Amino acid sequence: MRTNQKWLLKSRPVGLFKESDFEWREESVPALKDGEVLVRQVLLSLDPTNKVWATQDSYLPAVPLGDVMRGFGIGVVEESRDASFSPGDIVQGLFNWQLYAISKGAELNKLPKGVPLAAFMGVLGPIGLTAYFGLLEIGRPKEGETLVVSAAAGAVGSLTGQIGKIKGCYVVGLAGSDDKCRWIKEELGFDAAINYKKENVQEAMKRACPRGIDIYFDNTGGEILNAALALINLHARIPMCGAISQYTATGPVAGPANLVNLIPRRARMEGFIVLDYVSRAGEAIPELSAWLQSGRLKFRLDVADGLKEAPRAVNKLYEGGNTGKLVVKVSAE
Amino acid sequence: MRTNQKWLLKSRPVGLFKESDFEWREESVPALKDGEVLVRQVLLSLDPTNKVWATQDSYLPAVPLGDVMRGFGIGVVEESRDASFSPGDIVQGLFNWQLYAISKGAELNKLPKGVPLAAFMGVLGPIGLTAYFGLLEIGRPKEGETLVVSAAAGAVGSLTGQIGKIKGCYVVGLAGSDDKCRWIKEELGFDAAINYKKENVQEAMKRACPRGIDIYFDNTGGEILNAALALINLHARIPMCGAISQYTATGPVAGPANLVNLIPRRARMEGFIVLDYVSRAGEAIPELSAWLQSGRLKFRLDVADGLKEAPRAVNKLYEGGNTGKLVVKVSAE
Repeated sequence: MRTNQKWLLKSRPVGLFKESDFEWREESVPALKDGEVLVRQVLLSLDPTNKVWATQDSYLPAVPLGDVMRGFGIGVVEESRDASFSPGDIVQGLFNWQLYAISKGAELNKLPKGVPLAAFMGVLGPIGLTAYFGLLEIGRPKEGETLVVSAAAGAVGSLTGQIGKIKGCYVVGLAGSDDKCRWIKEELGFDAAINYKKENVQEAMKRACPRGIDIYFDNTGGEILNAALALINLHARIPMCGAISQYTATGPVAGPANLVNLIPRRARMEGFIVLDYVSRAGEAIPELSAWLQSGRLKFRLDVADGLKEAPRAVNKLYEGGNTGKLVVKVSAE
Repeated sequence: MRTNQKWLLKSRPVGLFKESDFEWREESVPALKDGEVLVRQVLLSLDPTNKVWATQDSYLPAVPLGDVMRGFGIGVVEESRDASFSPGDIVQGLFNWQLYAISKGAELNKLPKGVPLAAFMGVLGPIGLTAYFGLLEIGRPKEGETLVVSAAAGAVGSLTGQIGKIKGCYVVGLAGSDDKCRWIKEELGFDAAINYKKENVQEAMKRACPRGIDIYFDNTGGEILNAALALINLHARIPMCGAISQYTATGPVAGPANLVNLIPRRARMEGFIVLDYVSRAGEAIPELSAWLQSGRLKFRLDVADGLKEAPRAVNKLYEGGNTGKLVVKVSAE
């Protein structure tokens, strides 16, 4: 008999997550029914959207109070009553904040063996698809254009900037520490990095973008978005990926005063959600994979050790504490 | 010898225009040089963008202080030293706030005779192209969708709503008086009208749009934009045509707090300027013309009598005083 471990969502978090918003539960794993697959989770993805899921109906309904907190993960099949899956298979799916998940086979995405699981978290999964389709489909970069990326040392931001470089853009990233700035500039090849916690964002962005901004890939909203809007060029594109600066706000949030610049600059701002592109993963994964293997794409995981850590670790996203993709190591690979 | 009358821009207006921001000048009209055409202006167009032109470099440079205030108009050719134009021709161009304009032939657009000049101001000119391309190219309406238009009793708004009806949309307009609301609903055929000065905009919009908003055609920015963003449907489009609520602001303007909704709704917000579509007028004018002749498009001019009135009349735009297209009758047809 296996014992499951779970974090149930008990209250709607206000501001940052508190451990008291969750309840730890241990209970035995029920027997599988026909068509079900038992997955032991290895890596659980923590993402900025967790706060959205925990608090409101949005592109997915809010997690009901008392349910296991929602999360994507990668795991190993331990038992299967679906003929397409066998014990030992590596699978990706919505496994939530728990050690064992019981899924329908149709909800699982089988991953090739022999590739480190970290790569699926960092590049060859939702994060990679977000950066790839958000930049290429919504941002439509052209060689020589200036691309600005916020939360640039984060999971999506760090990939977006590198894909921008591959496409010939001049890439400027904003991040919240000198270490992060050094990482994106020296290791990831960004052309310039701005520590938004230390510098005047508007002035630093103006200095870093002498030819204005053609694409601003927005992960943060807030002040950085507003500063970017002041500098957009004619026909600029603003893929809206996230608004992490706002997810822990406890009151009404100010919109960007410079939004009106979209009119004279004939610029476009467009929101997207990676779920809409999952069916087109086959276009992206081979290319992302090739870039990864040739060293043109680099990634870093920021690993919290053990499911117990999840409620504390998730706040790193909103406090700017993580570098690269934040995950929880739930069990051994 | 003809005597010209002009309004020179003397200071950058703060808030509304003041008459002291202009200086009245009368002086004789110089002799034409080769290639020049002398136009006597009949109707001068007053538009929300006048405040932008008078205060800042934007999609056009700010009007230099001491120059004649900028404005589009329709006039009659009185003399010509360009072989393509003859006295009596009706022409459209950037004639500015003056009785006589000297233009190069290439800057003039010759209009067919026999059509009332009012029609060119109301539908078959920049106003019509703005509504036509802004709605059809940026908004891309589909039958059965809900279209919301702000400043709906204004020149562009009233046409946009009617074109939306022609395309099979459910059309809701916002305007600033009961008379305007009655006009757009009873005479122009809008499905619903909201008096934004009397009603709670968010609640009224929610009631008027039971199926949410697919297209919000924004002429105002501000509170109405924010309310619309709260109600946008999946894949909504927001053509950004103007931000008249902000043009007379004297301090920083709040952006829309609900902007972040673009992300979960995968929505698009896009600015445009009619100048970019002038070269495609040939696609729009025949259709606009046919709709006008068949009575499917109606328009109204709000006419100020005499060039002297321009500095006072222009403020009607920002105070919500006009119904339909605001023009100045500069001289007799």
